Amino acid sequence: MPGQTDNPPRIAVLGVGLIGGSIGLAARHRLGVPVTGWDPESANVGRAVELGALDEVADSVAAACGGADVVFCAAPVAALPGLVASALEATGPAAVVTDVGSTKHALVAATSALRDSDRFIGGHPLAGAETAGVEGSRQELFEGARWYLTPTERSQGVLFDRLHGVLAGIGARPMAIDAEVHDREMAAISHLPHVLANALASVAARSVRGEGERRPEVGRSFRDATRVAGANPAIWADIFSSNAEAVAAEIDEVAALLGEASKLIREGDRGRIAAWQEAAREDRRTMLEADLTAAPLVELRVAVENRPGTVAEIALALGRAGVNIEDMSLFPAADRRTGAISLWIAGLDEARQAAEVVAGLGHEVAPIAEAG
Amino acid sequence: MPGQTDNPPRIAVLGVGLIGGSIGLAARHRLGVPVTGWDPESANVGRAVELGALDEVADSVAAACGGADVVFCAAPVAALPGLVASALEATGPAAVVTDVGSTKHALVAATSALRDSDRFIGGHPLAGAETAGVEGSRQELFEGARWYLTPTERSQGVLFDRLHGVLAGIGARPMAIDAEVHDREMAAISHLPHVLANALASVAARSVRGEGERRPEVGRSFRDATRVAGANPAIWADIFSSNAEAVAAEIDEVAALLGEASKLIREGDRGRIAAWQEAAREDRRTMLEADLTAAPLVELRVAVENRPGTVAEIALALGRAGVNIEDMSLFPAADRRTGAISLWIAGLDEARQAAEVVAGLGHEVAPIAEAG
Repeated sequence: MPGQTDNPPRIAVLGVGLIGGSIGLAARHRLGVPVTGWDPESANVGRAVELGALDEVADSVAAACGGADVVFCAAPVAALPGLVASALEATGPAAVVTDVGSTKHALVAATSALRDSDRFIGGHPLAGAETAGVEGSRQELFEGARWYLTPTERSQGVLFDRLHGVLAGIGARPMAIDAEVHDREMAAISHLPHVLANALASVAARSVRGEGERRPEVGRSFRDATRVAGANPAIWADIFSSNAEAVAAEIDEVAALLGEASKLIREGDRGRIAAWQEAAREDRRTMLEADLTAAPLVELRVAVENRPGTVAEIALALGRAGVNIEDMSLFPAADRRTGAISLWIAGLDEARQAAEVVAGLGHEVAPIAEAG
Repeated sequence: MPGQTDNPPRIAVLGVGLIGGSIGLAARHRLGVPVTGWDPESANVGRAVELGALDEVADSVAAACGGADVVFCAAPVAALPGLVASALEATGPAAVVTDVGSTKHALVAATSALRDSDRFIGGHPLAGAETAGVEGSRQELFEGARWYLTPTERSQGVLFDRLHGVLAGIGARPMAIDAEVHDREMAAISHLPHVLANALASVAARSVRGEGERRPEVGRSFRDATRVAGANPAIWADIFSSNAEAVAAEIDEVAALLGEASKLIREGDRGRIAAWQEAAREDRRTMLEADLTAAPLVELRVAVENRPGTVAEIALALGRAGVNIEDMSLFPAADRRTGAISLWIAGLDEARQAAEVVAGLGHEVAPIAEAG
């Protein structure tokens, strides 16, 4: 194992709400590592200590970051560029800084200009409600949850490795993804549902208001479809505005498709309407196909030149191919210029596919042996 | 009580799926009345008898309707105009024919040309999934469920009264509503969510397909928002095409609103985006305000001239005012030209409001006394 993981990583959490508090709980109780916390609201850190989510309270970002190996910025999206910059400034040259924001491209772009941007790796756990506070923190919050990471070609492989290990250690399933791809996908599968929920609630309310005083009872389809309508306005204003172009593009696609649907329904051809229903059913089925296989882990050993960006390149290529890295270790050789990476992949077929992808990048991959 | 309710009504169910089967079960076990059933698929009626939903199986619509006082047409929407016409033809002059279709205006319009249209009252229970068969029938399916009725100015009050009584007796909460208003409301709160679910599933699938082989994991917001995407194609082709203009109008409204949303998000003004979120939240809250008060029942006695349409007129006016008629009885006077209606309303305030509405129609209302 590489040197820097001999000592347990010391963790700092900047912003102690549901996500920050749960990171603290999971890191302390599942990894057994010390966690320091800072929050602009001192009541939050006090409560986090009572809940067992923090060992220590820091009274400034700099104080929290001082001795940290891994820093989680868990603030609202709009506050992240400033907070990440402060954290990079306050941490030593071996510390990795990450965040938990719902959009990634704007933050990665803003951070790329900084001197220490090679120590920042964006993150986004698919867990927890944005509106909840530290009170709801749970150490199992990330159990089995996808946690996107957005390394760039500048990111230090050894820091990606350490962060990956911490996330896997608190139960999450980290996966590398390009920041722009992440934001486009989130626009389609997470932000767009919120926009449509808003639109449905507003159009229905307007239509029904026209019908006099009584309110019709609404059924489950309306309740489900509008569950997230008007979700936390401040947080969603941040998310929408930080991913504006991708979200707007998806909205425009829906509007165009609705124009076709309206025409189709007005024409009233039952056969074509039924075919449209069939297509939508198939589209949903495709989207919900989860790849939650419980296949045995297979180790993939890759010889690499120890240059910046190699780990990120491999992780991103595997992410694009749909291959999940369940675990990862870096083994720098003594000369520090070459090394080996072990990747653990679930399933023999997936491992073979991963080997092809990695070999395709020009790296040497050892023959696969199924692990126990 | 009027003469025709001295004997328990005999019920016929034409079409024995989930809804027809559940009507049979509830009528037999909760009202203790005999139920005859017919279905184009003979296996369905056989199974319905085994399940206890029918006393008797008829081998034709005419045979099922012969001795019936209340006929439920529980067929797909596209089959209803023909089935209702056959049922009216096959029933005696004192029988009421109703249906359980999800759209009402087209059926009411198609039926209005028939000689016996004064014996048809459209219906729509908000219960049950359209896709389920007789196997899922339950006698509690309609417990507490809204059941819309769409009488017209031609509908016979005594038949509306009898139908209302049967529906209340099987646990439903019948409410009269104009057929066109019903369809517009359903377009907004029931049909539109299906269209948006389809659009979301398809746009997301298209966006994600562009990103290579991997499928991103979708979260709860996507799952909820697309739950009804591609629901039973044949049934929804019927519903959409039988309510085409109202559904298309709602879709057009959403498309227009999405155009504004896309612009708003592109402009990226967080304050205005947050205000939009607030408005959507408020719209949803308004829509979900349920009026499920458990207030004591208050009797409202109304003197009426016994002319066609009076009961429908009163029921529709109260429906428009948002007042629910929990129970109802007609008392024709000996001369058959005048009579009294007792309406039971939940809550003293609602009863007073109802009294005002009914008095506003020119009827004499007795002073209200709170019932025990």
